[in-house]
Amino acid sequence: MEFLKAVTAKEALEMINSFPISLHTEVIPLDESSGRIIAEDIIAHENIPPFSRSLVDGFAVKVKDIHGAKETNPALLIYKGESRIGEETKETLEDGCCIYISTGAMIPEGADGVVMHEYSRPMGDAVEITRTIHKGENIIFPGEDIRTGSIVLKQGKRLTPFDLGVLAALGIADVWSYKKPKIGLISSGDEIIPVDQKPAPGQIRDINHYTILNMLRKTCSDVIFMGITGDNPEDIQGHLHAARDCHMILVSGGSSKGEKDYMTESIKQLGGKILFHGVNIKPGKPTIFASLWEKPIFGLPGHPVSCIMALTRFVLPLVKRLQGDNNPEKKQTKGVLTTNIPSSYGIEEYVRVEIDYDNKGCTVTPLFAKSSVISSLSRASGYIIVPEAKEGFERGENVVVYYFE
Amino acid sequence: MEFLKAVTAKEALEMINSFPISLHTEVIPLDESSGRIIAEDIIAHENIPPFSRSLVDGFAVKVKDIHGAKETNPALLIYKGESRIGEETKETLEDGCCIYISTGAMIPEGADGVVMHEYSRPMGDAVEITRTIHKGENIIFPGEDIRTGSIVLKQGKRLTPFDLGVLAALGIADVWSYKKPKIGLISSGDEIIPVDQKPAPGQIRDINHYTILNMLRKTCSDVIFMGITGDNPEDIQGHLHAARDCHMILVSGGSSKGEKDYMTESIKQLGGKILFHGVNIKPGKPTIFASLWEKPIFGLPGHPVSCIMALTRFVLPLVKRLQGDNNPEKKQTKGVLTTNIPSSYGIEEYVRVEIDYDNKGCTVTPLFAKSSVISSLSRASGYIIVPEAKEGFERGENVVVYYFE
Repeated sequence: MEFLKAVTAKEALEMINSFPISLHTEVIPLDESSGRIIAEDIIAHENIPPFSRSLVDGFAVKVKDIHGAKETNPALLIYKGESRIGEETKETLEDGCCIYISTGAMIPEGADGVVMHEYSRPMGDAVEITRTIHKGENIIFPGEDIRTGSIVLKQGKRLTPFDLGVLAALGIADVWSYKKPKIGLISSGDEIIPVDQKPAPGQIRDINHYTILNMLRKTCSDVIFMGITGDNPEDIQGHLHAARDCHMILVSGGSSKGEKDYMTESIKQLGGKILFHGVNIKPGKPTIFASLWEKPIFGLPGHPVSCIMALTRFVLPLVKRLQGDNNPEKKQTKGVLTTNIPSSYGIEEYVRVEIDYDNKGCTVTPLFAKSSVISSLSRASGYIIVPEAKEGFERGENVVVYYFE
Repeated sequence: MEFLKAVTAKEALEMINSFPISLHTEVIPLDESSGRIIAEDIIAHENIPPFSRSLVDGFAVKVKDIHGAKETNPALLIYKGESRIGEETKETLEDGCCIYISTGAMIPEGADGVVMHEYSRPMGDAVEITRTIHKGENIIFPGEDIRTGSIVLKQGKRLTPFDLGVLAALGIADVWSYKKPKIGLISSGDEIIPVDQKPAPGQIRDINHYTILNMLRKTCSDVIFMGITGDNPEDIQGHLHAARDCHMILVSGGSSKGEKDYMTESIKQLGGKILFHGVNIKPGKPTIFASLWEKPIFGLPGHPVSCIMALTRFVLPLVKRLQGDNNPEKKQTKGVLTTNIPSSYGIEEYVRVEIDYDNKGCTVTPLFAKSSVISSLSRASGYIIVPEAKEGFERGENVVVYYFE
């Protein structure tokens, strides 16, 4: 009987999440670090901003000097020159005076607020201020953005463009990050031919190569395509050997338990250990997870949809661990189902969906199609997980949808 | 008075969306096309799959021969060999017979269903089938995934890894796509220094260079950093000239209307036309949009948060138009506000937020901070738009949140 020992999705994830891995680090230029994972806590060694700056163009003042100022009753302040941007302001503001200041320039000693210059009128050597402000208004103080000694980014965070801004602010031009994992990708199947060949009867072109490779590339991995292997032990083992230097090996196709179960046999013959073969999910059941040369190896179903769903659910979390990502983000939303989704009890089911927004909210439309239908994936922007313990969802229910990455 | 002619966000977007652009195309390898925009409708020139295939390992049968079969009353079929994967199946299935077939192999002529082999028992030269199936079960028919003559991908679509799978299925190894726009990026301000320099009093490091460049790179653009310009017309005009070959120019900083409005003056002196200067938004008000050498040019606020919000709201839509993207996706979700958001009537306001998911749903927590505070952006995963006509949102309201790209 097939898949007698099929595991649950939860059991599969536990095995995957406890697979022992080791991480390596390197120093990379800030400019190349977007999407990479930082390997150390970043502790600020200076205040950002390092000095009090004006947030607007206007006049630096002592707030007490303009108390109660308004259009019809302006405060008159003596004009004492300008605080030039990019330079140190050495002047000290005295009572009853003001200093012109541009956005970003240094606040002069003694000033405790900046009046936007639309609330001012020049009057010879003086300036009329037509509005009162509160203490500290339009000033950003030293350390108000980042305080010396604070942890600004935690080890294990995937760097966004905004994080690069934080690193730039602190002058960190070189970033200590985890190395990108090297992932070996093999397509398997006697029927599979490269994309640029014309299929003879019985043959089809290699789809999974392109979907897997480009999904993984988006996560900052080095994916190396090792070619197509036929359904025979010599060819499979040759391809696995070629991927031996990789941190993870993925084989698409050849994972179903037919008469010729060459994939698990080949892994075993090379000294590997099958950790599971078969998960109670749909689609994606014949997924294999094994340890070979102390590295994780996945056998993914050949059907393009099954392959992508198994990749999304089981492979991506391990890829992210191999990248050092401590807290992977999963973009999601909620929407109202436009049709029923039937599902079997005891199986975790993945339903790819279209997501539509209008004024009223978000609607979610399942794309039902066989697991080999790649065109249905192309229209999907996300997927629903129907838990094992649930027999589907009903039309009108508000369901969680995960975006594809 | 400042920004007397400030436009609304809607007016700004109308000007941006009607800016005349021209698109150019090129042929790129399939392997490099993920994230690029396709420049033609892709019409299938063949059926996918090209032949009837089995979705499982099992026995190809005539469904009428196993009508009513069950564990206790199996149907007996004569075993007639195997349909080998990757080869043409030339045999025709006759009444009362079955042919072994692997997942993906060609269905023999005459068969109209496949019984999974867990519902079979070998009996010498025959096979007992212990379950009945419906017509067509476990078969994918020619054209069921993609039908000859159908439009599988529309011109103007951004290619996902799944779309690459569709193109691979059809044997399209070269993709006719729009060229990546070349975007010139300039940082401006006398106070701005490169990240690897130590700031003197009054100076700060260039943050916007890293945030803008890496946000735009994610959208498949070629961004060329043209350096830092000082706040003087010669330097600004020199930098703009250097970016003349680009399809779009972005300048961060120098857009506020201080006493020295060198940016708009420089654009005008080079023959450009200011389309708007100032938008009724917060943060991001001093944004400039202009036409120079028939190309769009944005002057973005120098404050890092204002800069990113103006980029997100106004620049990204035009970048996507320049990429040929007809229908840009905007990932969003809805969540319950954990605090009030005050906002002024008449101003479109952007509030960056943290998004948290738990069993109960999604909560959205505003990150209030001054517009120059980069560390608040680093913690944000999305933002809320408070419309002009609304004076904020209240705690407990269910609000739409856009994910940062």
